[in-house]
Amino acid sequence: MTTVTNQTTTQTQEAITFTLADAALKTLFDLTREITDLSAAASLQSWDQQTQMAMGSNVVRAPQMATLRAVIHERQAAPAFGQAVEAAERAIAATPEGFTVADQALVREARRGYDHAMRVPTSFVRDFSDATSVAWEAWMRAKAAKDFSQFADPLARVVELCRQRAQYLDPAADPYAVLFDLYEPGLTLAECSAALARVREVTVPLLQRIRAAAPIDTSPLHGDFADAGEMQLSREMLEAIGYQFANGRLDLSAHPFTQSLGSPYDVRVTTRLDRHNMVRALLPAMHEGGHALYELGIDPALMRTPLGHGTSLGIHESQSRFWENMVGRAEPFWQAQYHHVQAVFPQPFKSLPVADFVRALNAVNPDFIRVEADELTYNLHIIIRFELEQALIHGELAVKDLPAAWNQKYHDYLGVDVTDDAVGVMQDIHWSHGSFGYFSTYSLGNLFAAQFTATMRQTFPDMDARLAQGETSFLREWQRENIHRWGKIFRSNDLSRRVTGEPLNPEHFVRYVTAKFERLYGLS
Amino acid sequence: MTTVTNQTTTQTQEAITFTLADAALKTLFDLTREITDLSAAASLQSWDQQTQMAMGSNVVRAPQMATLRAVIHERQAAPAFGQAVEAAERAIAATPEGFTVADQALVREARRGYDHAMRVPTSFVRDFSDATSVAWEAWMRAKAAKDFSQFADPLARVVELCRQRAQYLDPAADPYAVLFDLYEPGLTLAECSAALARVREVTVPLLQRIRAAAPIDTSPLHGDFADAGEMQLSREMLEAIGYQFANGRLDLSAHPFTQSLGSPYDVRVTTRLDRHNMVRALLPAMHEGGHALYELGIDPALMRTPLGHGTSLGIHESQSRFWENMVGRAEPFWQAQYHHVQAVFPQPFKSLPVADFVRALNAVNPDFIRVEADELTYNLHIIIRFELEQALIHGELAVKDLPAAWNQKYHDYLGVDVTDDAVGVMQDIHWSHGSFGYFSTYSLGNLFAAQFTATMRQTFPDMDARLAQGETSFLREWQRENIHRWGKIFRSNDLSRRVTGEPLNPEHFVRYVTAKFERLYGLS
Repeated sequence: MTTVTNQTTTQTQEAITFTLADAALKTLFDLTREITDLSAAASLQSWDQQTQMAMGSNVVRAPQMATLRAVIHERQAAPAFGQAVEAAERAIAATPEGFTVADQALVREARRGYDHAMRVPTSFVRDFSDATSVAWEAWMRAKAAKDFSQFADPLARVVELCRQRAQYLDPAADPYAVLFDLYEPGLTLAECSAALARVREVTVPLLQRIRAAAPIDTSPLHGDFADAGEMQLSREMLEAIGYQFANGRLDLSAHPFTQSLGSPYDVRVTTRLDRHNMVRALLPAMHEGGHALYELGIDPALMRTPLGHGTSLGIHESQSRFWENMVGRAEPFWQAQYHHVQAVFPQPFKSLPVADFVRALNAVNPDFIRVEADELTYNLHIIIRFELEQALIHGELAVKDLPAAWNQKYHDYLGVDVTDDAVGVMQDIHWSHGSFGYFSTYSLGNLFAAQFTATMRQTFPDMDARLAQGETSFLREWQRENIHRWGKIFRSNDLSRRVTGEPLNPEHFVRYVTAKFERLYGLS
Repeated sequence: MTTVTNQTTTQTQEAITFTLADAALKTLFDLTREITDLSAAASLQSWDQQTQMAMGSNVVRAPQMATLRAVIHERQAAPAFGQAVEAAERAIAATPEGFTVADQALVREARRGYDHAMRVPTSFVRDFSDATSVAWEAWMRAKAAKDFSQFADPLARVVELCRQRAQYLDPAADPYAVLFDLYEPGLTLAECSAALARVREVTVPLLQRIRAAAPIDTSPLHGDFADAGEMQLSREMLEAIGYQFANGRLDLSAHPFTQSLGSPYDVRVTTRLDRHNMVRALLPAMHEGGHALYELGIDPALMRTPLGHGTSLGIHESQSRFWENMVGRAEPFWQAQYHHVQAVFPQPFKSLPVADFVRALNAVNPDFIRVEADELTYNLHIIIRFELEQALIHGELAVKDLPAAWNQKYHDYLGVDVTDDAVGVMQDIHWSHGSFGYFSTYSLGNLFAAQFTATMRQTFPDMDARLAQGETSFLREWQRENIHRWGKIFRSNDLSRRVTGEPLNPEHFVRYVTAKFERLYGLS
């Protein structure tokens, strides 16, 4: 029997293997391998576009990318691929006990890929690619000009195409639920809505209490910090959490991101620097490092297969949020790591106690920029987008009325007044890319992170003490064994049940933020 | 009638256009566009592998690259592609006057691509990819260990596969001529051999006379030059010759190279630095800049078509050699540019006259490293490889006997004794990649460069005076109009006839080096 086994995990309890004895499964495996390899080439085009490519090159890169995407779509929608999926499904149905969980998940993901691809015509894929290219360029121009009207029509076209995509995928379902499922197939839109409603219900009054409390001094984080020092600290913090530079790299980009070009061997992160704000330079690197640890922890047996990535955006974000927030904003971690900050920037940190540094890192400050939000108000930014997206996709809100609706919600939920559309409704890139349904996974990540952390704290009652000793590998190893190495084998709620004993439960996050911010602001 | 016209060249005498009125041609155009776009994605994988990728990522990159190459090969060998080529050929044969030179060259290149692909089985493409991956890794290990025996078997396998490739492509022809034609389709192996024989005949006695003359002092070029300064000078020299950073970038790599990822909009160069030798850092950047100017000068109408690259390796090398040698080692150029060198490295250049700097740049120094060779002895390095390659491919020399044969030829032709195989027979990467037939195009480049320069000097009798004024654009514009913009439309000897009135003629090079080095060494 042919098996693909991962040598490095033989000490773990469950080995991850494919049984490729069945000819139908072997055929499907080979076809998905080709698609996965081509997708990695497309990811490289995108990574390069955002980190290395000169802007003048986009005139040729954009159509090259559209071609490769069309070729991938064509293969994924090919009748031969559909037949291979069906044959493998029949083989598994006949003797399920002869197949591993990896086999079964491979077929499940291949089925999902085929269904998605064959329901959407290749001409639509090109239209969508063209429309989002146009919208992305319009977004950049409009944002620079602080003029939403330049973005409105291209955005309306993208909204229309997203609605059309949902129609192609499942004409009977709520189109927004169909789009949401593209990013978080492991739980339903209803579950997500309920969880976010609970978060909002708890966050708004907690925020009011914090506003009434004495503010935290964040002035030490605002100074003039040289790029080279911020970059050095970004590297050191990535090393502190266990990112492997031998299998990746750190670059700068306008929006920090993590790109796997072949997990677990090529996983790259980017960050951005902010001369005037240490946090904005330091925490994005740890956030992206958390994403990267997920991909670097995937079992090598899943390399070059459809299972060789994190299982969903929500679970992915839980890993980045864990390292950014539960570790990167925690005093025990900084007790061990603060000396790096003090060494690179003696002014002002040499004389600032670590406790004050950490308090400043955690200060709550309602503002209108999502990516600069504190840990508490962050979810309100998401909830605003989540509500507006549904209104747009359901046709209850016209694109031209979007800025006013946006500003009203920021006023109502966060108590801030947006100064202009560039830092308001046009602050994020996502809608220009057509990623409707994506934003909510950021909040799901926060919730899953709190839920996983509750379990980790049961496993490691001495977690804080060990972090304070400079240890981080015990956390990484736990994540690797329980979450990372499984790739896409288990979907989000199934994974959550395996790891925490229950599906998504927002009460862990509610308890976490309530306790944390009541203590921080002396509210109890 | 649908035409693809280039707006920016409307002032030039001949516009470059495709007439896509004929349905057969339009079909072929679309098919070649897909293949070209996929090939650009493959080029990006390779560029990234050599400049950005962490070494630990190669375990996944190598098979991803093999997959993409196989997909490209499959498309190029597809019966539908062959039928499209035939249909377009029939259309052109019926009414040749209805088609432009671009149309006709497109069909010619598509035919060549199809014939090459369909004659070689896809399994061979994978075998070749695997064997060269193995050989490349073995080469690196063996070179580091200075132990040819570790490289011998993988290299023998590559030689065998190259012979097999030639057999597939044209079983009736001399296999080495078939391999040579892969790189220089515009002239024959016999023409190349005759030209190289003439070069050798002139070079060897000239070298003997130089050896007997007073040596040139090159000591100012040998010092301790900081990386940042060398990098800055590389950028400044690229700017001086007109490289467009808006459509490319400069990186470091072990072996300098130029990669077009979509001419004329994305053309990247690399260089290397050498702390202890200014020339080795400065001239590679100008050399690669010359390659890049070629790709950046290609007519935008040829973008994303099989004609959108330089026409052959020999012509490509003529453009890099022109900027490296005819400009980059010429005193008039440095009269205008030397201040950059003096500003970055006041020690020792502030007090060194420009004439002495240029004399040092041109010193002849027979040695055993090709990439560090002076302009005169360079071709002897090539001739050695050219002779050994033929002996290997014809089965007259066994791989195990290669080091001894190599060392003997270095002794005979250059009068140097190779100290070990790492700097001897294993100094170049080419054979590990299976690029047999490639080396001679470097010398063809030197010959074409001299031939084109002779014509340029007739066109611009004041060339030296203008260079000394800091002008370079007149040379670039001449190259663009006569060579660059045509991409692959004209093959090498045809292009040479158009531009210089004759096919490859080594006498231009003979006159050039004889005059130059007799003057430099006071031999006349």
